[in-house]
Amino acid sequence: MTPAELRQRITAGEWTGPTAGVLDGYQQANLAIVPQELAFEFLLFCTRNTKYCPVLAVTDPGDPIVRLGGTEADLRTTVPRYRVWKRGKPVAEPTDITEHWRPDSVGFLLGCSHTWEGALRTAGIPVRYAPNSMAPAVYITNRSAQPAGRLAGPLVVSMRAIPADLVAPTVEITARYPTGHGAPMHIDQPHDLGITDLTKPDFGPAPVILPGDVPMFWACGVTPQLALPNAAAAYTITHYPGHMFVFDHPVDAITPNLGTRQEAPDSQPE
Amino acid sequence: MTPAELRQRITAGEWTGPTAGVLDGYQQANLAIVPQELAFEFLLFCTRNTKYCPVLAVTDPGDPIVRLGGTEADLRTTVPRYRVWKRGKPVAEPTDITEHWRPDSVGFLLGCSHTWEGALRTAGIPVRYAPNSMAPAVYITNRSAQPAGRLAGPLVVSMRAIPADLVAPTVEITARYPTGHGAPMHIDQPHDLGITDLTKPDFGPAPVILPGDVPMFWACGVTPQLALPNAAAAYTITHYPGHMFVFDHPVDAITPNLGTRQEAPDSQPE
Repeated sequence: MTPAELRQRITAGEWTGPTAGVLDGYQQANLAIVPQELAFEFLLFCTRNTKYCPVLAVTDPGDPIVRLGGTEADLRTTVPRYRVWKRGKPVAEPTDITEHWRPDSVGFLLGCSHTWEGALRTAGIPVRYAPNSMAPAVYITNRSAQPAGRLAGPLVVSMRAIPADLVAPTVEITARYPTGHGAPMHIDQPHDLGITDLTKPDFGPAPVILPGDVPMFWACGVTPQLALPNAAAAYTITHYPGHMFVFDHPVDAITPNLGTRQEAPDSQPE
Repeated sequence: MTPAELRQRITAGEWTGPTAGVLDGYQQANLAIVPQELAFEFLLFCTRNTKYCPVLAVTDPGDPIVRLGGTEADLRTTVPRYRVWKRGKPVAEPTDITEHWRPDSVGFLLGCSHTWEGALRTAGIPVRYAPNSMAPAVYITNRSAQPAGRLAGPLVVSMRAIPADLVAPTVEITARYPTGHGAPMHIDQPHDLGITDLTKPDFGPAPVILPGDVPMFWACGVTPQLALPNAAAAYTITHYPGHMFVFDHPVDAITPNLGTRQEAPDSQPE
């Protein structure tokens, strides 16, 4: 199955489940759709907290089509499940948002750490999941994101427990993927972040931590999701947790917005 | 002289000249001030062309004070010379913009390649300037920036001619400085970029190229300056070429917005 085929199945209503562990090696993304009147503040929030909100693509106001490299897809129908918010409260969890899209909607696709889990596995570094889960434990920290206008909230981190001798290569590998939040924000000493009990995450399953493991903490894409409701905008739309947008390009491809080659693969000389 | 002392001299009217070659090792920045109605489009243009427009700091609408790490400075009086534009045409080149700042003004500080020239020199890599100049040759390419709303224009590159055996370390060193446009966009083969005569740059002095040198091309901060007039906004304000804003932090400090440590040095746990 290719990413395009997955998106076709999603559009046809044949795939409504999570995308973690699917199409390992392709760029997955968090989705946020905001009204144009909030777009500057949201993009500024992402810019000021770029490790937490690495911007991959932004749609033009009112245009539901995202274009990045070879990917061209309708954001209203190509994410398996969405969450619709009004005035900061969740009101629906549909599998299609055609009826919720408005002429002032602006879509943001933000990188996600599914991006490098495959690379860690390839390197022989264990990524331990709780039974029947493909998601990491996620914690709200005692630190604030840099605010932007009405958008403010805590910084959120995901955790993976890694054997002590593999901590350094895990930093090296994840640092290669800025579209996956890059290198960790913090290693060990969870109290520094205000985390008093690793076994009780704020989101996701209780983690598997073996003797000799070191907890490593990465910037997490839940950060913008906790800031957005505080804006109490007329509406916002996000992906449903774990149900991501999947791009056509592999994560090892250089990404136009964050990588070393600016022009997208489809750009032409004038 | 520290960056704060330089900014004090600028504010006092005692320094109105360029900043290239001054305070080697500190982060210098391009300035753009736009009305709030253009702020989303400009930030989106920067995001879509981040190698050309690495965003270091954005002020809150109407607030002329930039705060980043330890730097706190009034953008109206701390750049040696400005250029004021109305409806896309330059109308003034003052050394103080207090009278031009408006309640809807939003200031953007974008990284600049002065950032890594000191690091190249330290590594023994020659940075050749034309006589009586501290500026590189700058060329308009045949490629378009990714547009954003009303903002569109060509990609612009700066060039340094580097001995062939030092091309690889020059890539390695500059890649460490995303706030200085990072690694080059293109090496050798200027025709690929539509550059037919290296001796005739579009901006800056004719370059010094010695036998055995290879031309290396970096993303250039002139790119947003060529796009801004196309928006024909009521007003915009930029720095006068070569007359940059200088931050308090050394370029080797990890930069909050683009580096690996998100929280600014002055941020505190909640």
